[in-house]
Amino acid sequence: MSRKREIEKKLKTINAEIGDVIRVICGKEEYEGVLMPHHEFSQENIITIKLKTGYNIGIAVDEKTEITLIQKQKTMEKPVKKIPFDPKKPTISIIGMGGTIACYVDYRTGAVHPASSAEELAFSVPEIFDLCNVRSQVAYQMLSENIEVTQWQRLATLIAEELNNGVTGVVIPHGTDTLGYTAAALSFFLKNLSGPVVLFGAQRSSDRPSSDAAQNLIAAVTVAATSDLGEVVVVMHGEISDAFSTIHRGTKVRKFHTSRRDAFQSVNDVPLGRVENGKLSLQTSYKKKTTGPVIVDSAMDQDVGIVYFYPGLKPEDIPQKKGVILAGTGLGHVSAKLLPCITSRINNGSVFVMTSQCLFGRVNMYVYSVGRDLIKAGVFSGEDMLPETAYIKLMWVLAHKKTRQEVESLMRENLAGEISERTRTDAFLSMRNETTQSEC
Amino acid sequence: MSRKREIEKKLKTINAEIGDVIRVICGKEEYEGVLMPHHEFSQENIITIKLKTGYNIGIAVDEKTEITLIQKQKTMEKPVKKIPFDPKKPTISIIGMGGTIACYVDYRTGAVHPASSAEELAFSVPEIFDLCNVRSQVAYQMLSENIEVTQWQRLATLIAEELNNGVTGVVIPHGTDTLGYTAAALSFFLKNLSGPVVLFGAQRSSDRPSSDAAQNLIAAVTVAATSDLGEVVVVMHGEISDAFSTIHRGTKVRKFHTSRRDAFQSVNDVPLGRVENGKLSLQTSYKKKTTGPVIVDSAMDQDVGIVYFYPGLKPEDIPQKKGVILAGTGLGHVSAKLLPCITSRINNGSVFVMTSQCLFGRVNMYVYSVGRDLIKAGVFSGEDMLPETAYIKLMWVLAHKKTRQEVESLMRENLAGEISERTRTDAFLSMRNETTQSEC
Repeated sequence: MSRKREIEKKLKTINAEIGDVIRVICGKEEYEGVLMPHHEFSQENIITIKLKTGYNIGIAVDEKTEITLIQKQKTMEKPVKKIPFDPKKPTISIIGMGGTIACYVDYRTGAVHPASSAEELAFSVPEIFDLCNVRSQVAYQMLSENIEVTQWQRLATLIAEELNNGVTGVVIPHGTDTLGYTAAALSFFLKNLSGPVVLFGAQRSSDRPSSDAAQNLIAAVTVAATSDLGEVVVVMHGEISDAFSTIHRGTKVRKFHTSRRDAFQSVNDVPLGRVENGKLSLQTSYKKKTTGPVIVDSAMDQDVGIVYFYPGLKPEDIPQKKGVILAGTGLGHVSAKLLPCITSRINNGSVFVMTSQCLFGRVNMYVYSVGRDLIKAGVFSGEDMLPETAYIKLMWVLAHKKTRQEVESLMRENLAGEISERTRTDAFLSMRNETTQSEC
Repeated sequence: MSRKREIEKKLKTINAEIGDVIRVICGKEEYEGVLMPHHEFSQENIITIKLKTGYNIGIAVDEKTEITLIQKQKTMEKPVKKIPFDPKKPTISIIGMGGTIACYVDYRTGAVHPASSAEELAFSVPEIFDLCNVRSQVAYQMLSENIEVTQWQRLATLIAEELNNGVTGVVIPHGTDTLGYTAAALSFFLKNLSGPVVLFGAQRSSDRPSSDAAQNLIAAVTVAATSDLGEVVVVMHGEISDAFSTIHRGTKVRKFHTSRRDAFQSVNDVPLGRVENGKLSLQTSYKKKTTGPVIVDSAMDQDVGIVYFYPGLKPEDIPQKKGVILAGTGLGHVSAKLLPCITSRINNGSVFVMTSQCLFGRVNMYVYSVGRDLIKAGVFSGEDMLPETAYIKLMWVLAHKKTRQEVESLMRENLAGEISERTRTDAFLSMRNETTQSEC
């Protein structure tokens, strides 16, 4: 019998399951904590428990190790009562998409799995019922890197249904990895918004003391229930501290850090506003909500790709697609040796749109000769759009317009705040001279 | 005769050439300024002059327009004297690569062309002779988007020759578009550096009042002539003002803005130091210069590419190369549907290295299931390396190591400051609450 099966048998004998509190005695050492799932990278003879301090430790188990059951896992408190309803308060709708934000129920085991319902998410932060009534549904339980056009389209339909049924706003818990892509897609899909559409997520799950889940949920609900925004926005931590949450325009936001809570930053635009100490403030111009109805226009031509230029990129590395977003260097350049290929692809009907891998600033292909050659070849300017936003937009535009002229014209038009008229000096990130060093 | 030829004839009659001051009288309007080259996007009947204010205007010319010559262009003052030599001062070497930094000679016409020699560049900012003696050569006159492995290799050889011939340091004027890639390449190529290797550029050419060319040159020369750095660094404006120049480690820096002078920012590392009011300060640990000799080890396997993940990326969009840098989402993820392709490519001998399109933060593929699946498939972690630095490094590593184990081990080793041991909270950019708005 393998060591792993042996441990499993030992645990079964004492009726200990994952989530129960157990005591493990190995010689003179004694550990007490919550039994965790066997980690697939651990050796077979290792049992993992989460200590009261919150740390997980792995303990090598042999024949002499004693394991005793201290306490069965408390049954999760299910929302036995119905969600409260107060006719004087606005009603918002939560539409779950999965991600770290929806993982609070696993705090005992530390494993990351989605919650089973959006109600559970709402009940985990009951403060939101002070602000509004809550309706909720789970659209998807997905890791966000697997979310694509199909999911964006269904989500847009659900949002429109909810708003057209009278909710004040919609909040969408979403994995942070591709949250920016979904926000951009919804921005182009949803017209005549009668309420705010607020995407948010969490960089740390609720079992961690540094979790941003609760603050982001409360801030998102505050925006959805109390603002007059008629836009798709992203609400996430504004600083490494819990000082405030920032409201970003859906077409102008990007995840800039793998793990920080203030990972999301606006690009080429100042944020729309913030939620600080429960107070909403909108600091710049925005589209106001309408009286409806919300219209969904979500046709997409998926034959589009993004290529980041690098020295050494060869013509054959540019995918053969109907639409190509180039993320060129600087003001919008690629090496001269790519020109013949780009020219011939455009002559054969492809659409190329130039953005910059700098991410900040505006494409200007008139300054240097290679840029002018790209314009001559028929490459369109992506202005100051993020490459990812230009990608979403081009899929949308190609599904709506047929001729090159129509496509170019619509790509240059500011449809959903994705193109800034002028370049603001305050819409850039700089290194702060922070000196503190702590968990980030 | 076309209108353009007509204008050319008119100018020839009065012996006016590009760069000369002319007066144009159209009816009641009178303009005086420097004759500019005909812009290829201007209509044929347009003549362009640069006014004293620095602005260019286009004037429609017809039969009645009078053009008179006011002053022939002053002949460019060539360095008739030899570059001064003071045996008490250190000697640095300037090795020109082209780019905006080398375009000062065209300030009268406003067109962007490289200078004809690095001496001209040095003489344009004579303050540097107070600091040191200058040797100079032009390695290339290239727009930086065309610079590739071959140019990096020759540049490394020239740098090593200069340092081994006794210069104190080397400064390299370079186009900003791919300056970061060149800095990373030199960081891996050059071993046992006996002096600083300083790359710098200009975001604005010298004809503009906001040019950063002179300050960046002086700061770069200060670092090369007076610091004890034994690293490859990038020196560029530290702020939108002229307050100071920042010294970035060559493997940790990236161009983040298409046009701002403070476009270059360190990623996952604090800058090495700064030059402020002519004073050099180094603020963090760095590799000190040796007594030499400098060794060049520049073998590269160029069969490597970078792929930025996006929702909708298909297996066939991943180039068939020996080495692939993935710029995944978040902690290092791609969609589950790419896994079979990645697994089979790795089984066929390809090397995949995961970096994050967040750019900031560290890859950690152990947190979520897709990350663990990628590790199982054999994807290596790029730790906190920039995708572009990981790309350069993988080309270098593949040319030096044969087995998967050796390649993985070297990719994980910190060879040139490209991997930070720990994640610093102060090595992240945040939106500054700047309120001023001016030309950026």
